[in-house]
Amino acid sequence: MPNAPDLEKLKSVLDGIATRYAGEAERGDVADYIPELADVSLNHFGIAVAPLQGAPLLAGDAEVAFSIQSISKVFGLTVALERVGATLWRRVGREPSGDPFNSIVQLESERGKPRNPFINPGAIVVADVILGNAKPGDPEEPVLDLCRYLAEDPSITVDEAVFQSEVATGHRNRALAYFMQAEGNLEGEVPEVVKSYFRQCSIAMSCRQLAMAGRFLAAGGQGAAADHAAVTPERARRINALMMTCGCYDASGEVAFRIGLPCKSGVGGGILAIAPGIAAIAAWCPGLDDKGNSRLALAAIEELSREMGWSVF
Amino acid sequence: MPNAPDLEKLKSVLDGIATRYAGEAERGDVADYIPELADVSLNHFGIAVAPLQGAPLLAGDAEVAFSIQSISKVFGLTVALERVGATLWRRVGREPSGDPFNSIVQLESERGKPRNPFINPGAIVVADVILGNAKPGDPEEPVLDLCRYLAEDPSITVDEAVFQSEVATGHRNRALAYFMQAEGNLEGEVPEVVKSYFRQCSIAMSCRQLAMAGRFLAAGGQGAAADHAAVTPERARRINALMMTCGCYDASGEVAFRIGLPCKSGVGGGILAIAPGIAAIAAWCPGLDDKGNSRLALAAIEELSREMGWSVF
Amino acid sequence: MPNAPDLEKLKSVLDGIATRYAGEAERGDVADYIPELADVSLNHFGIAVAPLQGAPLLAGDAEVAFSIQSISKVFGLTVALERVGATLWRRVGREPSGDPFNSIVQLESERGKPRNPFINPGAIVVADVILGNAKPGDPEEPVLDLCRYLAEDPSITVDEAVFQSEVATGHRNRALAYFMQAEGNLEGEVPEVVKSYFRQCSIAMSCRQLAMAGRFLAAGGQGAAADHAAVTPERARRINALMMTCGCYDASGEVAFRIGLPCKSGVGGGILAIAPGIAAIAAWCPGLDDKGNSRLALAAIEELSREMGWSVF
Amino acid sequence: MPNAPDLEKLKSVLDGIATRYAGEAERGDVADYIPELADVSLNHFGIAVAPLQGAPLLAGDAEVAFSIQSISKVFGLTVALERVGATLWRRVGREPSGDPFNSIVQLESERGKPRNPFINPGAIVVADVILGNAKPGDPEEPVLDLCRYLAEDPSITVDEAVFQSEVATGHRNRALAYFMQAEGNLEGEVPEVVKSYFRQCSIAMSCRQLAMAGRFLAAGGQGAAADHAAVTPERARRINALMMTCGCYDASGEVAFRIGLPCKSGVGGGILAIAPGIAAIAAWCPGLDDKGNSRLALAAIEELSREMGWSVF
Repeated sequence: MPNAPDLEKLKSVLDGIATRYAGEAERGDVADYIPELADVSLNHFGIAVAPLQGAPLLAGDAEVAFSIQSISKVFGLTVALERVGATLWRRVGREPSGDPFNSIVQLESERGKPRNPFINPGAIVVADVILGNAKPGDPEEPVLDLCRYLAEDPSITVDEAVFQSEVATGHRNRALAYFMQAEGNLEGEVPEVVKSYFRQCSIAMSCRQLAMAGRFLAAGGQGAAADHAAVTPERARRINALMMTCGCYDASGEVAFRIGLPCKSGVGGGILAIAPGIAAIAAWCPGLDDKGNSRLALAAIEELSREMGWSVF
Repeated sequence: MPNAPDLEKLKSVLDGIATRYAGEAERGDVADYIPELADVSLNHFGIAVAPLQGAPLLAGDAEVAFSIQSISKVFGLTVALERVGATLWRRVGREPSGDPFNSIVQLESERGKPRNPFINPGAIVVADVILGNAKPGDPEEPVLDLCRYLAEDPSITVDEAVFQSEVATGHRNRALAYFMQAEGNLEGEVPEVVKSYFRQCSIAMSCRQLAMAGRFLAAGGQGAAADHAAVTPERARRINALMMTCGCYDASGEVAFRIGLPCKSGVGGGILAIAPGIAAIAAWCPGLDDKGNSRLALAAIEELSREMGWSVF
Repeated sequence: MPNAPDLEKLKSVLDGIATRYAGEAERGDVADYIPELADVSLNHFGIAVAPLQGAPLLAGDAEVAFSIQSISKVFGLTVALERVGATLWRRVGREPSGDPFNSIVQLESERGKPRNPFINPGAIVVADVILGNAKPGDPEEPVLDLCRYLAEDPSITVDEAVFQSEVATGHRNRALAYFMQAEGNLEGEVPEVVKSYFRQCSIAMSCRQLAMAGRFLAAGGQGAAADHAAVTPERARRINALMMTCGCYDASGEVAFRIGLPCKSGVGGGILAIAPGIAAIAAWCPGLDDKGNSRLALAAIEELSREMGWSVF
Repeated sequence: MPNAPDLEKLKSVLDGIATRYAGEAERGDVADYIPELADVSLNHFGIAVAPLQGAPLLAGDAEVAFSIQSISKVFGLTVALERVGATLWRRVGREPSGDPFNSIVQLESERGKPRNPFINPGAIVVADVILGNAKPGDPEEPVLDLCRYLAEDPSITVDEAVFQSEVATGHRNRALAYFMQAEGNLEGEVPEVVKSYFRQCSIAMSCRQLAMAGRFLAAGGQGAAADHAAVTPERARRINALMMTCGCYDASGEVAFRIGLPCKSGVGGGILAIAPGIAAIAAWCPGLDDKGNSRLALAAIEELSREMGWSVF
C-alpha cells in the first residue's frame, strides 16, 4: 500500500482549488429534468478528501448537502453484492455501454441484461435484487442505511422533495423497468422497484459525508469502524474497476484518461473518486458538462490527482 | 512508486502458471480468419515479465514469436502521439465502444470518428496520421522501428506470410477505411493506409520481446536506454488508461474487473499488461475466448496479478 | 373502378383453397405469448371475401371467431383519423420501420415518435389520441363500436380471457408507452392507455365479420349502410397505402411483392387484405411464420389474388 | 386492365402542372455531392407520360437529359432478374430498410445481405450479379443497353463527367462493397463492381426517354416492340411492388401514402412512377427535399395521380 498522503500539501492543494473555482465563470449547466435539481445554485463548489485514517480534509462548500443521484449506484451495488454475491452478474454485465446512461437500445439488443450496474437499467436491476433478497430484520432502506453506517452519520436522509419529483417524472426509468420485466430480468413489481430506485437516488449528502462513505473503497474494503470490514479487499477492487470503466456514463474513458482514478458521478453535480490505498475524494458543483458530469468537480479531481500524483496509472 | 517486486516469488509464480497451463485442456479456439493464425498450435503457452530494471523473467514458450496483431495498436498510438500530440484526439475518441472491434455501426452514428485508437477503425486513422506526418529521415516502418528500439532487439520483423494473408482477406478493414474517407477522416489513399496497418498487425514478437517493448508504459514513459524517455510520464499514464478502458475489445470492463491492470490483447493470442511502476507483462496462448481475447493469457495475468498484488485498484 | 368479380369463379377458388389447406401439414406455430392464443387449434383455416355489394363468400372455418390482435390497428387508426384528422401525423409517422413490431430501438433514435400506426408504439399513440379526444356521447369502446357498425353485427365482443392475459403479460407495451410518455408523446395515464390498447387487440371476429368490417376500405370509404360514408375515398386510399407498406411487420415488403394487395396481419393468425374497388378479404389460420404472419392465411390470399388477378400492380 | 386514359384531360393536367411549377419558388436544393449535379439549374421542370399505346405526352423540360442516378436501379434489377431469376433474392432482400439509402448499419446487423435492391448496397450486389453472370455476346453495358432498347432510343448515353465524379467521390459505396465482400456477398473485384454501378448511375435520360423506358412496367412487362415481352407480367408486378415499398428511400411510405403509385427516385431530381395498366410517368426537377427526393417531381406526380384517379388504392 502506498504511504499516507502529505496532509499539509493536500490541504494547500484543496484550498487553492476551492479558492480558484469559487470564481470560475464556466460552470456548465444544472440538470433541469426535475425542478429540485434545477433550483440549486451554480455558485456552489465543495471538495472533501477522506484519507484512510483520521478526519477528512474539507474546502469550499464541503458541508452543504446535495442530491447524490447516480453516485448512489455504488452503494446500491455494494448492498446487492452483500446479499447475493457474484450471482448478481447473471443479471447485469460489467462492460462500458458506449451509450448514454438511460439508453434503451442496448437493452433490446442484449435481451434485457443491462451492460453494467452504473447505467440506469443496471441500477434498477440492482434495486430489484436488493428488494427480492431481503431477510427479516433488514433495514427498510438498506442503501440509505449503508451510507449512514459508512459515513458514521445517522443524519443522512432522503430528500423528500427530490424523491417526489423523481416519482412524478421518472417515465423513462419505468420504461426501462417494464422492458426488463418483459425480458424476464425484473422480479418485483415495477412501481415498487422504481420507487426504491428513486429513493436511493434522492439521498442527500455533503462532500464530507460522501468522502467518508466512499472511504472503504480506498481502504481495501475496510469500513470506518476499525473492527469491521465493509467488503472484502477483492470486492472493493472490483467495484473500483467498474467505477473506472463505467462510472461516468459515456465519458468514462475520458475521465480515466484525464484523471486516472475510479470515479462515479451523479447529475446532482457530485463525483466520488477513489485513490486506492490513499483516500476517497468527493467534489461537488451543480454545473454539468454535455455528458452529464460536473464540470468543476471533474476539473478539481483532475487537478488534485495530478498535483498529488494519485493516478493509478 | 511501488517497490521492486520480489523476484524470487515472481519466478515461482510464473513457473507454477506455465507448468499448470501446459496441461490445461480448455484452451479456446485459434483465430481462423487467416490460415497463418489458424495453423499455430494451441499447445503453446508463454509468459514474460519485464520489471523496471534488469532482465525479464520468462516461463513456458516465452521465446517463441507470435503475431502481435492488435497489440501493435499500442505502439502505433505511441508513434502517432509523438508525431502530432494531442491533436490526434480530434480524429479519434477515447471512449470504450461497447461494440466488437471491427463494428462499422458506431462509425456511422458518429460520422466517421472512431471511438478509440484500439478498435480497428481507430487504429486505421492512427496509421493514416503516421503516414501523413512523416518527416524526411523517418523510418519506413515506424511502428516496427519503435518496437525494435523499445525491445532493444533489431531482429524483430514483420511476418510476411501473415501480412500477405491480411492483404488478401482484409475487406472489412478496407470498408472501414473507405467509410472514414467518405466522412473526411482519412487523408491518405486507402490501399496505402491499410497496407501500413496490415504491416504493423503482422509484426511478430515473443513474450520476452513484447514485455521489453511495453516496459516503458510501466516505467513512466522511460525507455530501456537509461538516458532516453520514450514518452512523458503523463503520456504513458494516458496510454495505460486507454488500455484499461478500451484494450480488450468489448471485454475491457470484464478484464479490468478481473485483473485490474491495463491490458491490450491481439487475436494472435498475445496480451500485453502493465503494472504501473512495477513491470510489463506479456502472455501468449493462441486459443481465444468468445470475445477474441486469449483465454489462457488472460487467466495467467489474472493469477499473476492476484498472487503479486499488482491490481491498481 | 374495376368490375365486380366473377362470383362463381371466386367461390370455386375459395372452396379449392379451403379444401387443400384443411390438409396442409406445414402450418407454422401458434403465438405462445399468452395461453389464450397458444391454445387455439392449428387445424383451423377459414377465409371470407366481401365484394362491394352483396353477401360475403365463405369457405372453411369462416364463422369461427378468433382474436384479431394487430388487425385492430386498422380500425383504431380509422377512429383516430375521424377524431383528429391529419394532425394525427404529428405524433406518428407513415414509414415502414424495418424493425420488428415491438422494437423500442427506433423509438429512441426518433425521440418517441413511432414510425407508423401499425407497429405497437404507433397503435398505443393512436389509442392515446382516441382517449384524449372523446366527446360526450362517444361510445366507451369506440374501436369495438366501429367494428360492430362496419360489420353490421352488434354481437362482436372483446374476448375477456384474452384481454386479461394481455394485461397480465403486456410489460413490453407498458415499456413502449412509458418511453413515449418520457418523450412527451403520450398524454393519458399509461395504465389507462394500454388498457384501451389491450381491449382493442382482444376483439374477436370471424373471417366473415372481419371481411365485412374491412369492406369500406375496398369501397372507397363507403360503409355497409348505403347512405353512409365511413371515411372519404382519399382517407380509404391512404389507409390502404399504409397497410401495403407497413401492414405485415417487417415482412411488409415481402407481402407486397408476393400478393400485391394492402394487408394487415395479427398474431392471432388473421389477415385482412383489400382489393381496392373489388372486395375485402379475411383469412385465418393460427399458425405463424417467423415474422409473425399467418402462414396459411398469407398463402391463401396470395393464391386468391393470383387466381383472380387482383394485384394492384 | 383499366381503360386507356382520357388523353385530352391528361394533356391539360400536364400543361397546368408545368406552367404552375415553372414559377414555383420552393424548389428544394440540388444534390451537392458531386459538382456535376450541383451545377444543374433549379429552374428546370419537366414531365412526360407514356400511355400503354402511342407517343408520350410531354410538358416543360421533358426533352432535357438529366442524370437518372438511382432510377437506374430499376433497370439494373430488371437485367439481373433476367440473368439469374429468383435466385437473386438469396443475396438481396425485399423489405424496406427504414434507413437512409447509403446506411451501412443494416448491412452489419444482417450480415452483408442488403434489405432491398433499391438501396445502394442492394444495387451494388445487383451490379455484381450482372457482371458475374455475363454470357458471351452480352452487351458491355447491359443496363444502358436495356434503357436504349426499352426507350427505343440508341442515343441514350452515360454522362462521362458525372461518371468521373462518381469515381472520384464514391468512397462510401466502396465501403459498402468491401463490407459485403467481407461478408461473402460480393463475388467480383470491388473496383470493377463499383465502376459498373457508377456507370449505370451516370446514365442520362430525358423525361420522355425515361417514361418510355419504364412503360413496360405499366404494360404487364410488355416492351415497346409489340412482339416482345421485356419481362413476364408477374415480374413486372413484383418490380412495381418493390418500387412501392422501397423506391423512395426512407420516404417510401410517405410517397405511397400521398401518391399511391410505385415510384423510384434519383438524386438527380428525376422520378419514375408507374400507373399499372395505364401509363409510365417521368418527372424531373433537380431540387430535392430532405429525404433526397425531388420536391416538385413528387408534387407533380401526386397532383397528376389525384387528378387522373390513378392511385392503385
